[in-house]
Amino acid sequence: MTKKHKKLWLNAKKIIPGGNGLLSKRPERFLPNNWPTYYIKAKGIFVWTLDNKKLIDFSIMGIGTAILGYSNSTIDTKVKKAIDNGINTTLNCVEEYELAKEILKYNKFADQVKFAKGGGEAMAMAIRIARSNSNKYKIIFSGYHGWHDWYIAANLSDVKNLNNHLLKNLKPLGIPKTLKNTIIPLKFNDHNQLLKLFKKNKDVNIMVIEGARNDYPSKKFVETINKLQRKKKIILIIDEITSGWRESLGGIYKKVNLKPDIVVYGKALGNGYPISAVVGKKKIMEKSNHTFISSTAWTERIGFVAALETIKFMKKYKVPYLIKKRGKMIVEGWKSIAKKQKIKITTNKFYPMPTFNFNYSGKNEMLHTLFTKYMLEKGYLSTNYMFVTYAHNKTTIDKYLRNCEKVFIKINKDIKNLKSFGKPIERKFTY
Amino acid sequence: MTKKHKKLWLNAKKIIPGGNGLLSKRPERFLPNNWPTYYIKAKGIFVWTLDNKKLIDFSIMGIGTAILGYSNSTIDTKVKKAIDNGINTTLNCVEEYELAKEILKYNKFADQVKFAKGGGEAMAMAIRIARSNSNKYKIIFSGYHGWHDWYIAANLSDVKNLNNHLLKNLKPLGIPKTLKNTIIPLKFNDHNQLLKLFKKNKDVNIMVIEGARNDYPSKKFVETINKLQRKKKIILIIDEITSGWRESLGGIYKKVNLKPDIVVYGKALGNGYPISAVVGKKKIMEKSNHTFISSTAWTERIGFVAALETIKFMKKYKVPYLIKKRGKMIVEGWKSIAKKQKIKITTNKFYPMPTFNFNYSGKNEMLHTLFTKYMLEKGYLSTNYMFVTYAHNKTTIDKYLRNCEKVFIKINKDIKNLKSFGKPIERKFTY
Repeated sequence: MTKKHKKLWLNAKKIIPGGNGLLSKRPERFLPNNWPTYYIKAKGIFVWTLDNKKLIDFSIMGIGTAILGYSNSTIDTKVKKAIDNGINTTLNCVEEYELAKEILKYNKFADQVKFAKGGGEAMAMAIRIARSNSNKYKIIFSGYHGWHDWYIAANLSDVKNLNNHLLKNLKPLGIPKTLKNTIIPLKFNDHNQLLKLFKKNKDVNIMVIEGARNDYPSKKFVETINKLQRKKKIILIIDEITSGWRESLGGIYKKVNLKPDIVVYGKALGNGYPISAVVGKKKIMEKSNHTFISSTAWTERIGFVAALETIKFMKKYKVPYLIKKRGKMIVEGWKSIAKKQKIKITTNKFYPMPTFNFNYSGKNEMLHTLFTKYMLEKGYLSTNYMFVTYAHNKTTIDKYLRNCEKVFIKINKDIKNLKSFGKPIERKFTY
Repeated sequence: MTKKHKKLWLNAKKIIPGGNGLLSKRPERFLPNNWPTYYIKAKGIFVWTLDNKKLIDFSIMGIGTAILGYSNSTIDTKVKKAIDNGINTTLNCVEEYELAKEILKYNKFADQVKFAKGGGEAMAMAIRIARSNSNKYKIIFSGYHGWHDWYIAANLSDVKNLNNHLLKNLKPLGIPKTLKNTIIPLKFNDHNQLLKLFKKNKDVNIMVIEGARNDYPSKKFVETINKLQRKKKIILIIDEITSGWRESLGGIYKKVNLKPDIVVYGKALGNGYPISAVVGKKKIMEKSNHTFISSTAWTERIGFVAALETIKFMKKYKVPYLIKKRGKMIVEGWKSIAKKQKIKITTNKFYPMPTFNFNYSGKNEMLHTLFTKYMLEKGYLSTNYMFVTYAHNKTTIDKYLRNCEKVFIKINKDIKNLKSFGKPIERKFTY
């Protein structure tokens, strides 16, 4: 990255708090001072930086939005045609209805759909709808569910409550204190804690979990949830914003036998064009007719058009099947070269979002950052986690893994000489 | 509208609560059973319905989003080029920074900007930021500010609290009861009530108003707010989502000498492409670095590109000046023909959003609906309120007013024979 582009980012941080609107795209989270800041072009798995350097993206792929790869011409052609015909008028666009029909095909439990643009606001909508169905407004949750008050309120009683859910030691600044104790954290897959929490909190009947993050919901966890649903009137919301459409058309919940009342989609649904959906049973969803959930931006046409075409494409080309298969290739590849090079790593089980962690107490963050640094030198956007897309194929994955091996060899030497580094660079996950 | 298209809307209502994501675009609000449902094409002020009928839009113009008219080719060409180069990648798009710079040019009081896609979520963001700057989280507000909990909570203490703010008798379903009394309604332009409210509620230092709706903030109202700001540490948020960019580049606050800490934009900012902005003073905005406000959808490129180009266009062609002038033509036109035809109407003062109301006690809603019915027969999408855009010019306005006059003549006869109508059709504003 040239000085000029670093300067641009520093200038942006002066007038945009944090530099941009999304934590996950901040360069400091990958490689402080050296992760590229801005792009000018992107196609497939390639991204061109401002100084026209072509990089290969084996990292977050638009934080999981570009499930078919960047600038997929099938989707983009349809979107551009919609633009020519008007995207936001006094009348409605029929694609909103068509997309609702299409999404219901893949969610047999559900009868109705409401759309938004972002994932966070779709979750806020799902919570409003769930709460509209109950006088009990308290929530038991696991996982990451966005920036809205209902969720961040978890940290009003303990600033560590969201630590196991992607947000470390976050102060709940700006959340009304009266929301204290309205939401209770649960460790993912801890079925014993789940039972205890529901026993202890008689005033809870809304539960929110993610479809998958690092790992799938365990059999025991799912069985416990199923049982609780049979015994109590629990409204189960499954947040598939991150996990949805990657391994099945729909969500992970279908594969693990979870029985949701509401499912929420976002991210991949529109291949990068903002669109999110709240999908649910009629008796639950129709309460939204009696509260007020409405926003101008939601009726804009592009998101619907993009999502319709993305789902069609995913079905036609068996995208979820391929993504899981290729994710497995990557995880197995990492494991194999780590073993060969005698590097200690652990890997995750949810293949569409492969993750590895170095296993060197106290040094891991530095090693992850080094990995990124060396991969960048080889022309890759890469860190220890990634989103697999349809645009990652066997050839590019093989080449990526060969480069990973070279970098692991280098890191192996570094591990033996860690002291000689001086002050280590470390990625930063601040808010 | 053909039967087929009515059927389509009825089917949509079965699987989408309310039929769509935005109350303001529901046909029942204009002309139950006869307002067109869906469009296939839109250009300038013309909209083509599903059965290819060309209508002239003198109504909500995409609820105020299409400030330059539908499918403006200058904006759309830029957007399509951005699409070709990728709209959502692992790296950031430089247009986010450029738009922040551009918006600050028109908001001299401000130093920093954060973006979202929708207006409702931008207001939720503004509230979070304001509350992050204060231990007092209570709010005094006037006007309409979206669907989020912080706002609808107003009706927890009285279901009529939002009646003067566009939402009639709305039950606060799904809002945690603990938010009761966190937000206090204020009648727009009632400076006496304003003083009383701040005297009575020592624990409030956040105030939210709209830039303009039917009318401008009165001189006395503005002076009172200014004085309160000097005396107390009040954080003033001005919601210019609806009023912004229509009469000045920026917001109405500039014209009436309001001194905001935060200004919020949406709707017109991207000429229909979803983009919203929270603009504020550095000392206020930078607190957002210490709470968590982040969403994937916000970093998508199209909204930034569209807004940059829309602002440039508005400046170049003096759009706000023209919109006010043309809005005045419409209001004066209505008044003139009403006088001529001896019809009693009242009109509003905020010309960019002309509004008239029939003045026949108990019969007004029926007359408004009749007006829409007759105008539709003449090929117009029209009701008693509208958004003026750059695409409405003198010729089209003159022609529109000639048609209004014909319809007023018809309505004059109806007023004399109201009893013979049988059960009147009336527009419905249900949630």
